[in-house]
Amino acid sequence: MSEENVVYIGNKPVMNYVLAVVTQMNSGVSEVILKARGRAISRAVDVAEIVRNKFITDVQLGSIDISTEEIKNSEGRDSNVSTIEIQLKK
Amino acid sequence: MSEENVVYIGNKPVMNYVLAVVTQMNSGVSEVILKARGRAISRAVDVAEIVRNKFITDVQLGSIDISTEEIKNSEGRDSNVSTIEIQLKK
Repeated sequence: MSEENVVYIGNKPVMNYVLAVVTQMNSGVSEVILKARGRAISRAVDVAEIVRNKFITDVQLGSIDISTEEIKNSEGRDSNVSTIEIQLKK
Repeated sequence: MSEENVVYIGNKPVMNYVLAVVTQMNSGVSEVILKARGRAISRAVDVAEIVRNKFITDVQLGSIDISTEEIKNSEGRDSNVSTIEIQLKK
């Protein structure tokens, strides 16, 4: 699976990411992975739910994986952050 | 599955919920479901990750489901909120 099928969820409004997913799916991509970490995890779930309930109703949820990444925080110390990957497919 | 195996994740510190899950599992329960909605979804993922990485390393992730609930907001209007259910099992 190529990197262009991944939508990284950050701190922008939810609809920005919904539009990104809908655009990709309408361009012929049959599978999109949403990736988020930390507080953006809730937003990733919102994006998945809005896409499949409001925009592309034949999209199905695929696998949902959660994990932990080690990152350096602003003070240079290691800290752990949770991540989620949500697969959407037609 | 009985209701006592469900841990609802709200706005308290993450470790409160980690402790609730660890206590249940150490009391002989083999399966706990974490439920959260809205912004608490990120915290539910944190709880699952901390329990299985730091406290009970033989716990495994079971199914992870996301969904949408309709709730009345403070102005009495219907609004949608995303939900997550994370199954942890030994």
